[in-house]
Amino acid sequence: MSDNPSFVLRGIEDVVYEQRPIPEVKENEVLVSVKKTGICGSDVHYLVHGRIGDFVVEAPMVLGHESSGLIAKVGSNVKHLKVGDRVAMEPGATCRVCESCKAGRYELCPDIVFAATPPYDGTLGRYYRLPADLAYPLPENVSLEDGAMMEPLAVGVHSVSNLGGLRASQTIAVFGCGPVGLLCMAVAKAIGASRIVAVDIVPARLEFAKSYAATETYLPVKPEDGESKIDYSRRNAENMKKVLGIADRGTTSIDLVIDASGAEVSIQTGFYIVKAGGTFVQVGMGNPNVTLNLGLLMTKELNYKGSFRYGPGDYPLAISLVANGKIDLKPLVTHRFNFNDAITAFKATRNGKSDDGKGVIKVIINGPDAEN
Amino acid sequence: MSDNPSFVLRGIEDVVYEQRPIPEVKENEVLVSVKKTGICGSDVHYLVHGRIGDFVVEAPMVLGHESSGLIAKVGSNVKHLKVGDRVAMEPGATCRVCESCKAGRYELCPDIVFAATPPYDGTLGRYYRLPADLAYPLPENVSLEDGAMMEPLAVGVHSVSNLGGLRASQTIAVFGCGPVGLLCMAVAKAIGASRIVAVDIVPARLEFAKSYAATETYLPVKPEDGESKIDYSRRNAENMKKVLGIADRGTTSIDLVIDASGAEVSIQTGFYIVKAGGTFVQVGMGNPNVTLNLGLLMTKELNYKGSFRYGPGDYPLAISLVANGKIDLKPLVTHRFNFNDAITAFKATRNGKSDDGKGVIKVIINGPDAEN
Amino acid sequence: MSDNPSFVLRGIEDVVYEQRPIPEVKENEVLVSVKKTGICGSDVHYLVHGRIGDFVVEAPMVLGHESSGLIAKVGSNVKHLKVGDRVAMEPGATCRVCESCKAGRYELCPDIVFAATPPYDGTLGRYYRLPADLAYPLPENVSLEDGAMMEPLAVGVHSVSNLGGLRASQTIAVFGCGPVGLLCMAVAKAIGASRIVAVDIVPARLEFAKSYAATETYLPVKPEDGESKIDYSRRNAENMKKVLGIADRGTTSIDLVIDASGAEVSIQTGFYIVKAGGTFVQVGMGNPNVTLNLGLLMTKELNYKGSFRYGPGDYPLAISLVANGKIDLKPLVTHRFNFNDAITAFKATRNGKSDDGKGVIKVIINGPDAEN
Amino acid sequence: MSDNPSFVLRGIEDVVYEQRPIPEVKENEVLVSVKKTGICGSDVHYLVHGRIGDFVVEAPMVLGHESSGLIAKVGSNVKHLKVGDRVAMEPGATCRVCESCKAGRYELCPDIVFAATPPYDGTLGRYYRLPADLAYPLPENVSLEDGAMMEPLAVGVHSVSNLGGLRASQTIAVFGCGPVGLLCMAVAKAIGASRIVAVDIVPARLEFAKSYAATETYLPVKPEDGESKIDYSRRNAENMKKVLGIADRGTTSIDLVIDASGAEVSIQTGFYIVKAGGTFVQVGMGNPNVTLNLGLLMTKELNYKGSFRYGPGDYPLAISLVANGKIDLKPLVTHRFNFNDAITAFKATRNGKSDDGKGVIKVIINGPDAEN
Repeated sequence: MSDNPSFVLRGIEDVVYEQRPIPEVKENEVLVSVKKTGICGSDVHYLVHGRIGDFVVEAPMVLGHESSGLIAKVGSNVKHLKVGDRVAMEPGATCRVCESCKAGRYELCPDIVFAATPPYDGTLGRYYRLPADLAYPLPENVSLEDGAMMEPLAVGVHSVSNLGGLRASQTIAVFGCGPVGLLCMAVAKAIGASRIVAVDIVPARLEFAKSYAATETYLPVKPEDGESKIDYSRRNAENMKKVLGIADRGTTSIDLVIDASGAEVSIQTGFYIVKAGGTFVQVGMGNPNVTLNLGLLMTKELNYKGSFRYGPGDYPLAISLVANGKIDLKPLVTHRFNFNDAITAFKATRNGKSDDGKGVIKVIINGPDAEN
Repeated sequence: MSDNPSFVLRGIEDVVYEQRPIPEVKENEVLVSVKKTGICGSDVHYLVHGRIGDFVVEAPMVLGHESSGLIAKVGSNVKHLKVGDRVAMEPGATCRVCESCKAGRYELCPDIVFAATPPYDGTLGRYYRLPADLAYPLPENVSLEDGAMMEPLAVGVHSVSNLGGLRASQTIAVFGCGPVGLLCMAVAKAIGASRIVAVDIVPARLEFAKSYAATETYLPVKPEDGESKIDYSRRNAENMKKVLGIADRGTTSIDLVIDASGAEVSIQTGFYIVKAGGTFVQVGMGNPNVTLNLGLLMTKELNYKGSFRYGPGDYPLAISLVANGKIDLKPLVTHRFNFNDAITAFKATRNGKSDDGKGVIKVIINGPDAEN
Repeated sequence: MSDNPSFVLRGIEDVVYEQRPIPEVKENEVLVSVKKTGICGSDVHYLVHGRIGDFVVEAPMVLGHESSGLIAKVGSNVKHLKVGDRVAMEPGATCRVCESCKAGRYELCPDIVFAATPPYDGTLGRYYRLPADLAYPLPENVSLEDGAMMEPLAVGVHSVSNLGGLRASQTIAVFGCGPVGLLCMAVAKAIGASRIVAVDIVPARLEFAKSYAATETYLPVKPEDGESKIDYSRRNAENMKKVLGIADRGTTSIDLVIDASGAEVSIQTGFYIVKAGGTFVQVGMGNPNVTLNLGLLMTKELNYKGSFRYGPGDYPLAISLVANGKIDLKPLVTHRFNFNDAITAFKATRNGKSDDGKGVIKVIINGPDAEN
Repeated sequence: MSDNPSFVLRGIEDVVYEQRPIPEVKENEVLVSVKKTGICGSDVHYLVHGRIGDFVVEAPMVLGHESSGLIAKVGSNVKHLKVGDRVAMEPGATCRVCESCKAGRYELCPDIVFAATPPYDGTLGRYYRLPADLAYPLPENVSLEDGAMMEPLAVGVHSVSNLGGLRASQTIAVFGCGPVGLLCMAVAKAIGASRIVAVDIVPARLEFAKSYAATETYLPVKPEDGESKIDYSRRNAENMKKVLGIADRGTTSIDLVIDASGAEVSIQTGFYIVKAGGTFVQVGMGNPNVTLNLGLLMTKELNYKGSFRYGPGDYPLAISLVANGKIDLKPLVTHRFNFNDAITAFKATRNGKSDDGKGVIKVIINGPDAEN
């Protein structure tokens, strides 16, 4: 138990297992024996591109940030946790003293130490150290796999509930049916949205969304030759409104759009779809530069908000929604691999399916210690 | 006094004086004898292009919507006004019953009857009829010219105070030093902003902004050959931050950006300038399709809001700020013309200067009756 | 069909059936043939006391304000309704032009014409006239009895969702298990509250609350001889916290307290029960002067809000929650009477049970025309 | 320089100078050489009563919490401060990890270590240790006395701007013209309130308020024999409204009431005075149990908020308002004493005047080292 094998990204397409020192815990910290880790698109992006925007991998970095595990050691001041406790791990340790941290928006802390965002190591090892308040005890009816999924679910909570402000009986359209999009729909359903429209260009993903949390689905029309993206998006939006019976105002309008796709035409279409006075939350990262119709932003007085990770209260709400049975995370975990097969796990995530052809939603990698 | 001469736009570059019927007032309406009317960029835009976005002039339309005047007749239910009262005229009559009207966002009313927005006639005539609650009595120390200026000032109030939420000691940068930009700065000053940065590509406009309400000014660097707009904007923003000492966070950061220019590079620069967690209000109309850096929107969790006209409380606050001496509108009125010289007045506004070379900020046209 | 029999309060304990003129409808109004009317505590209060606070019955007044019916006539401008449509009737016609109406808080309109609030007639007649936008079409799966119940449900929506701001997975305690208290719990359940604590001094009412919407119930301890109300309330609160496992903070604390009882000791107890930083909404009317512990208000920075009727969006949300199956109103209607038996209906409401001993939650009186 | 003389409360009316150990600073802390300390009503209350509500002095405790000083030592991680820096000292060290701390309401932290609130020592010694982020560097134009006054000013900022939400051109009435009331008025003036009504039963205090920040003053009428407090308050409020021309709605109404008196009749009067839909912030502590008219709370849908100390952003805003010249703290400091004369200083505060008869607003005690 004294070693700390870790899955390390050394450079583009260059990963390796390495021993890392077991971190010392300070008085307010805990050491977690990592048991379950989900693979996120950002992990894959670092593997393939070595960077995401201005975050560049310049030194070997342990991957992984969607994790749960068992408390292995507690600092001297830690009262609410003991060795063996099952916990979800919030992977961003913040400074606690900056303007953003104090004002209740710690996701904006400039000094955040976020797992697997360069230059900070991630959670794909035997042990990970974090501040004790970021290790959330899991209720009995919440599994360790659920615990690992709290990270992307917290993104959904942050986008839909916190920033999007969705309320019971309101309506939402979610562009993109990957894990984050699906979890945004799950949050909307838990909140009691009356209308949850899933949009994706892959019919199988729409089918799954419908079976999981959406009340309706929309498959975008095809672009025509020579059609500009803006023109296409307007046409696509008009078709979507006609097919689904979406009005500009009133109970059949869309109160909140979430873009979890990062695709320019999705965002443009969303600007047309959302109601006057509505909110649009951008959570999907894609091409950083996107052309938007500001006439719509202005005449509809839209509120276009960027969403980044999660903030105060998002992890607790995520756990509560699962514990109360309002969200079921199990259908999203399609693949499980052992720690030693992490490379295969990443390959399946990249390909969107495993070697046997089964489509991937979320891949979970077990911790190095097999027994859980 | 029984005729109603009006200044009518018949088509592109085709204006004429015509007699129009004097409107009948219903029980909750008043008839105003129009005394002062400011010319707005949108009036000129209709004259030159015959349309603004989806609003197309398809039938002759009286121009003008920034007006004040004297009450000429009151409906049978009107209690708070009497003939002869001096009033500012809010030019958008709304339906009062739709979801937006009831929820306190009447600027989004789909059935709004807005002066000089097709197909509705404007205020550049002898008389204009409006709902009595939209005729705001002017305090004694507020002139009829001030009263006409309440319309663009209400746009500033709506953008800076209502949507932007600016508070005392916060900081603001305003891109574009035309009338709306200047009035946004005036509102920021009245609110007690600690830092008001004016940005424009015309040095003389910056000078005026500084003398009027800005605490600092910034003249953008020149684009380089072959430089993309996004690259230019980033370089421009970095220079602006260095020159003015603008940080990403803290008391020297920018809490609120207002774009009153509609220029793509201004908006892009603003995305770099605004602080993490900040707000960006778009009030300037330009090219409707603008390319934006969504990475900044997301990682800074910006709140990008469209601003359209004004809503409940904006006119009262505008009048109050002027009456209390917190905003002086007089320096903005650079030119005055008689009703019969409306064509010359429009020409000066288009050219940005009158025939004698004097730069235009705001042109006021007197009503047909000379005595005021 | 030309007559308009009405149930009129002439003075304390003095009710009579009278013919009233059928109101003329103006262009934006409708005439409703009233089919179902719930009796509210305020109707009974006017009958017994002739007043509620400063509202005094000084002239004969038709009673009733919780109603639904069929459209009998539409004004010339009314487009969205036609004769025969089934509608819920929002009973407060507001001025549309005051500061409160425009700002989205029309419940505060000083000129509101509210059914059965002196000096305005209520809905317990054959016909009632109201502005067309206050007649809400009922979806097919919503009955006319449900439609009448939308009025008290809108009070619950206003208190719990609008003013209380309750969100999914939050916690609530409701003091008082009468119709309004029960409907507050129903709204909390529809919103997805994780904990809904019902408090009442009548065990049978607690049982019903549990079967209907509460997750937990609490029967207050008895006051001791000579114990002050404040001392009693503190002791009662401490017991309640111990028995139910309520903490001052965290997931087992109470985010929102609703007092629907109007009882001083309930309010005092609620101040102890609600969490630090929590919200307390007062919707129950009782003794107007109540002694409160301001030390709790201050050290917990409570937000103590008065709730009055309902505002924009409350009726639509109420209807939507019922139409979507999130709230079932049927269990609350315990008694039904014909129009001619209104006096018996009031008697049952006053007594809290009918002559056969069956406990009253809500009594519905049918309209004069029997066929519905 | 190695000793730490301190002014210690041992019990009711029992104070003494004692040596205390100089605290060790941890990595994120600083040691401050205390130079200026204001005396607060709570310090006097502990001296006279040995307790405030549930906070009981059970062991000797150093008094004082309104302080400024020079940095004497910095922890190893502290970058933004160096020895000799002039700082204002925010006297509440919070846990940083609880729900309240993370959510941006650290004033509600249950584990706050607040100077001179039992069992924690205060600042009336030579040295005081605090977390580095709570030591705010003073701009050059802000004196050390100003720095000590930031504490009560932060209370005003918290009450008027943060909780009260006061905006430019709004109106406020402040009950109680002691230091906190006066500072609330100063904040209102800095924000640009159009109407600032000061209320107090001492004419000289009203005069000072008028000279300092109020636009109007009101001296309450006298209670009549046998008149209940509620009846008196209603009569007093009606008189106040008539004398000052205060309406229930509109521009002459009162948007925000601050009670800084703690007096029952002030609070009752305030309930009558505040406009429909208005806000009432309770910052003055008096008799903990107060009888209120809930009919007003409900029919006006008031928002009655408790205010406790200050939260994120309040100290920075307080400093900024003084540095920008919007608030002048100097007129409030009426008396200055040396450290060795602390007992005389307390006596003057208790009596409301010094031995020479000069009225006290705020007393400042110099630090033990005379040179500043």
